[in-house]
Amino acid sequence: MNLRHKTLLIPALLLSTAAAWAQPAPKPENLIKWRQSAYQVIAWNTGRIKASVEGAYNKEEVIRAANTIAALANTGLGSLFLPGTEAGKGWHDTAAKPGLFTDSQRVGELAANFSREANELARVAQGGDAAAVKDQHGKLTRTCKACHDDFKASN
Amino acid sequence: MNLRHKTLLIPALLLSTAAAWAQPAPKPENLIKWRQSAYQVIAWNTGRIKASVEGAYNKEEVIRAANTIAALANTGLGSLFLPGTEAGKGWHDTAAKPGLFTDSQRVGELAANFSREANELARVAQGGDAAAVKDQHGKLTRTCKACHDDFKASN
Repeated sequence: MNLRHKTLLIPALLLSTAAAWAQPAPKPENLIKWRQSAYQVIAWNTGRIKASVEGAYNKEEVIRAANTIAALANTGLGSLFLPGTEAGKGWHDTAAKPGLFTDSQRVGELAANFSREANELARVAQGGDAAAVKDQHGKLTRTCKACHDDFKASN
Repeated sequence: MNLRHKTLLIPALLLSTAAAWAQPAPKPENLIKWRQSAYQVIAWNTGRIKASVEGAYNKEEVIRAANTIAALANTGLGSLFLPGTEAGKGWHDTAAKPGLFTDSQRVGELAANFSREANELARVAQGGDAAAVKDQHGKLTRTCKACHDDFKASN
């Protein structure tokens, strides 16, 4: 094999490996749409729990809702806030404030608080104690508010 | 207590019980927005698994994505398809075909297939076998397509 063939072959192999591994990165508008969707699903499910603790308590309904919130809290929502999504439109213009993309320490703390309380709510829901669920649901929604206060534009 | 007091008291008690139990029903546009959001979250997560089985396999990423899909499959999405939501706009006009609200036997079968394959995918994901996950991911997405073919307008 002469030098010319070698120099052609190596980039071709690299390219073929890269093609097998590299997936097209999701578009910023999809990332924004997915995160807006994820928070809507969380809102739906916190509402289901609120309806149960303020009305007729339905243990199975609360377990399903709490498990859904916990799954979203554990799924890695941070991967939907990539550079390039600081502005833009998913279902609507993003409500994320610029600091969400720069203040990683505070964002990390808030995300950890949310995950901890969501997982605890899923655990407490299994017990079927409406008062305990109400208390833990309050702890969870306060972590939502704390993050909205700092990093969500009131639009 | 005379008759007049009795007749006043009973409705008052009923009303107060009803007030404690009845939550305002979610608006149709919210139900439609929440179901559109839930399916977007499922699409995001099936895409994460596809990227992993077609590219660099990431076991933890696949577990998180599969758990999210399973939580949504188990959460009772049917409660977002209440009467009164056959038409209307959430993020956009609903793509649900009328049969989705009337053909309960077929819808029930399709929903059960989706849940079964989603829960199996969450189980298989724990093993970290990329080929097994790819196979099960295919089984899951075929249940999505089966329902879309019958009950989702191509808009």
